[in-house]
Amino acid sequence: MDEYHFNEPEPLINLIKALKRLPGIGIRSARRIAYHLMQYDLDGAGFLSKSLSDAVASLRHCVSCNGFSETELCFTCASDFRDKRLLCIVENPSDQNSVESSHGYKGLYYVLMGRVSPLDGVGPKELNFQKIFDRVHAGNVEEVIIATGFTAEGETTAQFLIDMFSSANIKTSRLARGVPAGSELEYIDAGTIAWALIDRKIIN
Amino acid sequence: MDEYHFNEPEPLINLIKALKRLPGIGIRSARRIAYHLMQYDLDGAGFLSKSLSDAVASLRHCVSCNGFSETELCFTCASDFRDKRLLCIVENPSDQNSVESSHGYKGLYYVLMGRVSPLDGVGPKELNFQKIFDRVHAGNVEEVIIATGFTAEGETTAQFLIDMFSSANIKTSRLARGVPAGSELEYIDAGTIAWALIDRKIIN
Repeated sequence: MDEYHFNEPEPLINLIKALKRLPGIGIRSARRIAYHLMQYDLDGAGFLSKSLSDAVASLRHCVSCNGFSETELCFTCASDFRDKRLLCIVENPSDQNSVESSHGYKGLYYVLMGRVSPLDGVGPKELNFQKIFDRVHAGNVEEVIIATGFTAEGETTAQFLIDMFSSANIKTSRLARGVPAGSELEYIDAGTIAWALIDRKIIN
Repeated sequence: MDEYHFNEPEPLINLIKALKRLPGIGIRSARRIAYHLMQYDLDGAGFLSKSLSDAVASLRHCVSCNGFSETELCFTCASDFRDKRLLCIVENPSDQNSVESSHGYKGLYYVLMGRVSPLDGVGPKELNFQKIFDRVHAGNVEEVIIATGFTAEGETTAQFLIDMFSSANIKTSRLARGVPAGSELEYIDAGTIAWALIDRKIIN
């Protein structure tokens, strides 16, 4: 089947092309979404159009944590109630929210907005590691907590950060690896069990 | 994890909400798309915003075939080279394109923009069957070719249409069911083989 139909009106073709450009959306999904919006949800189409132009116009990166913000300094960085001696480095805003929702952390954040992924051409330079280093120095940070994912890319990113901070004698830690809370050991993969054994905690 | 994060800027929350409203997009995809657009593809965000507002402003339904069109009568319906005695009824514009790409049909179309699906509250009334009936009568159509899908809903839709047209003595046909072109019988499901036997064509 052709990607774009014979005799299809141009505004519809443009809409399908714009939707197809989104990550994870192929030509069939783009077409289905376009038909749905035009047939059943014109309000939704208008709302999305406005939300996109508003976001493009008003969102920027917080100068301190690199997260999305409407103001120069985001709400979290501007807060007086955060412990400025701790800096937690996460891959993206969703990861930041996961740490926040644990209610176990009151320090500040740095959001990488990505992770080291050589195959995609993303290295320490693309993620602006120098900016993170400057941020740590300028802010009198006493401990950097690396909270990148425990995936191949997340681990690589963590290693680059650890190398950078240890050569500068900055105290650095990584989230603990182990058995998730509430899990039966029976259902946990062998790799996780192996790490939980290596990182086991001496009680007495 | 919370759907919307603590302290997230409002334009970002609105964008995520608008994306989540699209069919087949959940909260995680919506968030991923929003981050991607804001981080890596501001041009794509602008293009999508403009395409949406253009489409909402300029697209309408062709008065004759019910397909999407910029003008009152779509390109296909306005053409002098189509056989106006044949009307092919399809579920959506993608199905219309499939029939077009076969190069085996030169008649006109009627696009249902849906199919009978009682569980979703879509019946003959919602699909405006009266309009189709009027279209067939007004246009001196000699044969209606029903090309809805061979799914449960497509078959139900076809049956409703067949009932409507046969009670009005209008010649009605349905696409042939059988073994797809280029297929080895070995890989075809039993139901299709059964239908191909029932609908077998006597050669001599």
